[in-house]
Amino acid sequence: MTVNVGVIGVGMIGQDHIRRLTSVVSGAKVVAVTDVNAEQAAQVADSVDAEVFATGQELIDDAAVDAVIVCSWGPTHEEYVLAAIAADKPVFCEKPLATSQEACLRIIDAETALGHRVVQVGYMRRYDPAYRAMKAVIDSGDIGAPTMVHAAHRNPSVPGHYTREMAITDTAVHDIDTTRWLLGEEIVGARVLKPRKNSLGGDLEDPLLLVFETESGVLFDVETNVNIRYGYDIRGEVVGERGTVSLAESTPTLVRRGGTFAGRVTEDWRERFIRAYDIEFQEWIDAVAGNGRLGPSSWDGYAAAAVSDAAVEALHNNSQVGIKLIDKPDLYN
Amino acid sequence: MTVNVGVIGVGMIGQDHIRRLTSVVSGAKVVAVTDVNAEQAAQVADSVDAEVFATGQELIDDAAVDAVIVCSWGPTHEEYVLAAIAADKPVFCEKPLATSQEACLRIIDAETALGHRVVQVGYMRRYDPAYRAMKAVIDSGDIGAPTMVHAAHRNPSVPGHYTREMAITDTAVHDIDTTRWLLGEEIVGARVLKPRKNSLGGDLEDPLLLVFETESGVLFDVETNVNIRYGYDIRGEVVGERGTVSLAESTPTLVRRGGTFAGRVTEDWRERFIRAYDIEFQEWIDAVAGNGRLGPSSWDGYAAAAVSDAAVEALHNNSQVGIKLIDKPDLYN
Amino acid sequence: MTVNVGVIGVGMIGQDHIRRLTSVVSGAKVVAVTDVNAEQAAQVADSVDAEVFATGQELIDDAAVDAVIVCSWGPTHEEYVLAAIAADKPVFCEKPLATSQEACLRIIDAETALGHRVVQVGYMRRYDPAYRAMKAVIDSGDIGAPTMVHAAHRNPSVPGHYTREMAITDTAVHDIDTTRWLLGEEIVGARVLKPRKNSLGGDLEDPLLLVFETESGVLFDVETNVNIRYGYDIRGEVVGERGTVSLAESTPTLVRRGGTFAGRVTEDWRERFIRAYDIEFQEWIDAVAGNGRLGPSSWDGYAAAAVSDAAVEALHNNSQVGIKLIDKPDLYN
Amino acid sequence: MTVNVGVIGVGMIGQDHIRRLTSVVSGAKVVAVTDVNAEQAAQVADSVDAEVFATGQELIDDAAVDAVIVCSWGPTHEEYVLAAIAADKPVFCEKPLATSQEACLRIIDAETALGHRVVQVGYMRRYDPAYRAMKAVIDSGDIGAPTMVHAAHRNPSVPGHYTREMAITDTAVHDIDTTRWLLGEEIVGARVLKPRKNSLGGDLEDPLLLVFETESGVLFDVETNVNIRYGYDIRGEVVGERGTVSLAESTPTLVRRGGTFAGRVTEDWRERFIRAYDIEFQEWIDAVAGNGRLGPSSWDGYAAAAVSDAAVEALHNNSQVGIKLIDKPDLYN
Repeated sequence: MTVNVGVIGVGMIGQDHIRRLTSVVSGAKVVAVTDVNAEQAAQVADSVDAEVFATGQELIDDAAVDAVIVCSWGPTHEEYVLAAIAADKPVFCEKPLATSQEACLRIIDAETALGHRVVQVGYMRRYDPAYRAMKAVIDSGDIGAPTMVHAAHRNPSVPGHYTREMAITDTAVHDIDTTRWLLGEEIVGARVLKPRKNSLGGDLEDPLLLVFETESGVLFDVETNVNIRYGYDIRGEVVGERGTVSLAESTPTLVRRGGTFAGRVTEDWRERFIRAYDIEFQEWIDAVAGNGRLGPSSWDGYAAAAVSDAAVEALHNNSQVGIKLIDKPDLYN
Repeated sequence: MTVNVGVIGVGMIGQDHIRRLTSVVSGAKVVAVTDVNAEQAAQVADSVDAEVFATGQELIDDAAVDAVIVCSWGPTHEEYVLAAIAADKPVFCEKPLATSQEACLRIIDAETALGHRVVQVGYMRRYDPAYRAMKAVIDSGDIGAPTMVHAAHRNPSVPGHYTREMAITDTAVHDIDTTRWLLGEEIVGARVLKPRKNSLGGDLEDPLLLVFETESGVLFDVETNVNIRYGYDIRGEVVGERGTVSLAESTPTLVRRGGTFAGRVTEDWRERFIRAYDIEFQEWIDAVAGNGRLGPSSWDGYAAAAVSDAAVEALHNNSQVGIKLIDKPDLYN
Repeated sequence: MTVNVGVIGVGMIGQDHIRRLTSVVSGAKVVAVTDVNAEQAAQVADSVDAEVFATGQELIDDAAVDAVIVCSWGPTHEEYVLAAIAADKPVFCEKPLATSQEACLRIIDAETALGHRVVQVGYMRRYDPAYRAMKAVIDSGDIGAPTMVHAAHRNPSVPGHYTREMAITDTAVHDIDTTRWLLGEEIVGARVLKPRKNSLGGDLEDPLLLVFETESGVLFDVETNVNIRYGYDIRGEVVGERGTVSLAESTPTLVRRGGTFAGRVTEDWRERFIRAYDIEFQEWIDAVAGNGRLGPSSWDGYAAAAVSDAAVEALHNNSQVGIKLIDKPDLYN
Repeated sequence: MTVNVGVIGVGMIGQDHIRRLTSVVSGAKVVAVTDVNAEQAAQVADSVDAEVFATGQELIDDAAVDAVIVCSWGPTHEEYVLAAIAADKPVFCEKPLATSQEACLRIIDAETALGHRVVQVGYMRRYDPAYRAMKAVIDSGDIGAPTMVHAAHRNPSVPGHYTREMAITDTAVHDIDTTRWLLGEEIVGARVLKPRKNSLGGDLEDPLLLVFETESGVLFDVETNVNIRYGYDIRGEVVGERGTVSLAESTPTLVRRGGTFAGRVTEDWRERFIRAYDIEFQEWIDAVAGNGRLGPSSWDGYAAAAVSDAAVEALHNNSQVGIKLIDKPDLYN
């Protein structure tokens, strides 16, 4: 069975997902696209022999579309996800699920009313083989119950429009989701510590040290450091009562030369997480086709938003900010 | 465009490739199968909605079949590959290409007469990301011209029918192909050194140390060690004039526990090379569809056979055995 | 020239230093000992053919004693160090220099009045080859100016009398000194974050995450985790503007066995820092003999005390505590 | 107790050992020196306040000399070692013990006649912490009985007078001794394989691949590669029936910078084995003083000579050469 997919938003990320569905993922076909830029939509549609729709709503409603991918501009996510829920069609929404907690809650309400899950949010790290291995170690009990998590999220550089808030909402939000998932519990507090600025980042308040606390009291610190030049480097260690598990270096080779032995650091998120994206979409298509389960849910999107909001407040106010989620609907257990 | 594939031989490996083409690879569809075991053929065909053919020849000749995969019993490979060449259809043949050098040469003759390549042999290591990175380092010139290659091919255990010759023809043959490809030159000599037996392998003469020499004088040693219990471990280092490149540990995580920090060794060849197989078939399908080039050729199959034969002779005679290949047809340059 | 050393306090650590001076360090001879336990003093003296003194003061004043080591009970350190300053004799004082900042300042005053340094404090990590290599990388400028330091100080277990304050004053104090030395600047703020308790440590509030800030704004976090069972593990990474440097695994071998490759984690501080202690004492003896310079100073002892005091206050009050040192006397520049 | 040492030969290595005995090792004093270069002898003697002797024989016979170190020119070793045996004084002889097997046997005869060991040969790798850890793993039985040993001995460059034979007698001889010691058995066969030349070494036949066989059939290969530029790199892996143990990277730090993470390769043998030398001499002095046992014996010196000779013959004749040692005198068991 082939899943016929409609894609809303065919910018850089949308096009990458279309390429993935077409050339990498098995069992999928892109049959419909739409974009505010009609010309671009037409061009992309042409390249994969898909139909162009004037609006996301029309695309979602079309009978030929089995499942929807939303990778349009963030502020439009809520509308399209709600429309997909209304149409009872599986929808994969790139992060963020929506741009406010309230919007996320409206989505949760709609999906809960529908009575079964259709929404998946694009937290691809859960599909990364190293993170999965890390989770398996934690779940095995080998290192004992976690007490702390240390992480670092380093980028070589960021574009000029990047703000300090984006270090939380765009960058650390992945670590927030990953930690919630690794530990299987919610984050209930956030604070932000501010080291001296990296001069390579100009005026940007960078790096930051975010410190979160979970329900059970696990402390989770993550360094965001987005102008560190040397590479895209994602580090993580979960500290348990009797041991720890950390992400290993992911270099394919070691080169001995000129007084050193050296491994490669990945260049950017594409290189680091390409496998995660491929697996994410393959498993989503499989789940849509009835083989397997959907991944990160509306609840995960809401929780990530709530934690991010708290961290942004902590950044602005130099304070410790508590996080109180609504009661979790049964649908998400 | 979808490539319609016919599969000859639906034993364990054939079934695995069918699963891969169906659930992993993009752009392929299994439309035809055949097997000496008609019942099994019928069952597998049913599961993927393919047609069953009574013979490989009929399958190859069917107009619905765009490309052929041969994973039947080794002695049948020659016949099916020749038939595919006669039909001018792309054929992916699992190793070995054929069971004798003479048979390989008949295939080369037929393909040369056809005038363009249609055959690809299943040396999947060339698609492994770590080996590809290793080749990129060599080709960059960073370590200087190679002088030696050290390798080890370790299996936790082998089945009872495994013979010492198979350590060459089934096991080290992968290392032979990889080294030819990494260095871009032919192997011209072989000898086999025999350490004391590993008692865990019973009467099997195991491990062995194979030592090959290339055209330019590079010395290539590979340890085959197929009862070493601890895991499936593929090691390799290419030594250049001013540096070396080696395969890095491929563990996803490091676990600190009980006095050690530890990474994972892969359990079997499936785990170690699953990505290589996936990429191999995706690139083969892409090449068949006109996007990209075919991989390991009939020439590579022939050369591997010639080197293996020499090594088996060296094993039997405790001697250094020279290898003389025919002149390489232009088709393979 | 042989340096004749008098040792005040011959408990476990004193005896270890005597062994070191006698069997490892070159150019030293233990000629005098004293201890509140006269019997133990006599026994130890006998074993190395040294003279026993009734009091530290008498030992310090004896003409045969060139240099003094103080490893008696912490509360007695001030008195003996001041006596050594009064006698103008080099004195090596195990940490802490004294049990209060005020006492440290009295020592600084006395030494400043004397006009030249005689005091060295036992911060042995500055002699550890790995930390020295780390400092060389920082000083080379290769990673750019530091912005953050991440560290962990893990012990397999601690004795029953260990308190949460000791995680700062006995454990993290080493990391405090190391970071001051690595960065070449003072720490000006401290706070303590509290993860959930490790149940293996009983009622002890353990682990902790201490976060310090330096003059230039570098953020330095250190995990203390003293019941983690798996080993004695000292981790550290200095994050610079364009790179980082971290302590490497220090295992001598890698063992491949049973599905893993594994290196060794050191068992206790003795194993981890034995070389640092040996080098520390050799360099101290050399410096006393006129070849080389003294190591960590009274100022370092005072600064460590001030930072520890602030961290203990932060622990008690759950607050961010500032640290204001006196102006640094020229003697220590 | 202080051991009074006389040093025969005060060239570069002799001076380094004198520095070590004077400034690093505890319990030793250099009281006598001699050298064919009388002026140099006088200068060195002056610097450590030792007496100069006109000949090695006079130095050995002097009552003030408790123990002798021989680091004069190789051809003189036999004479001085025999003289020390005659005088019943402990003698540490730098490798080689003597320049022929026959000379080694004369030393063995003399020492056997004396009835107790006085000779130790300078195979310092047995004191290297990593090799000791490797031996502990082998002896634990964790990896099962050894079947193979892989090693590499790489130097950045060698002086102009270095010959291909020296790759065996000066370079690989260390690996020969180490392997005999690690495995606790003798080497009985040698052959030499010749890769293409490294052009950086000019006309020198370099690298080489030496392959040895032990009594029990363990195969031991060692790459000598003495112009490889990138550093001084000693690699080793012992392969057992169910696992392996290898020397780990010995870098103190990892630096992340410019797209790589990198550790340090040691620059030369001094850096790599400085600890081994220090421990070697400390343990030798301790043994001479009655605390501990002597290290590598005359037997080890003889066996290394016999194996080296065989390898040189194998190099010259391109043949497999057998090694037959005399029966081992009880003194060396």
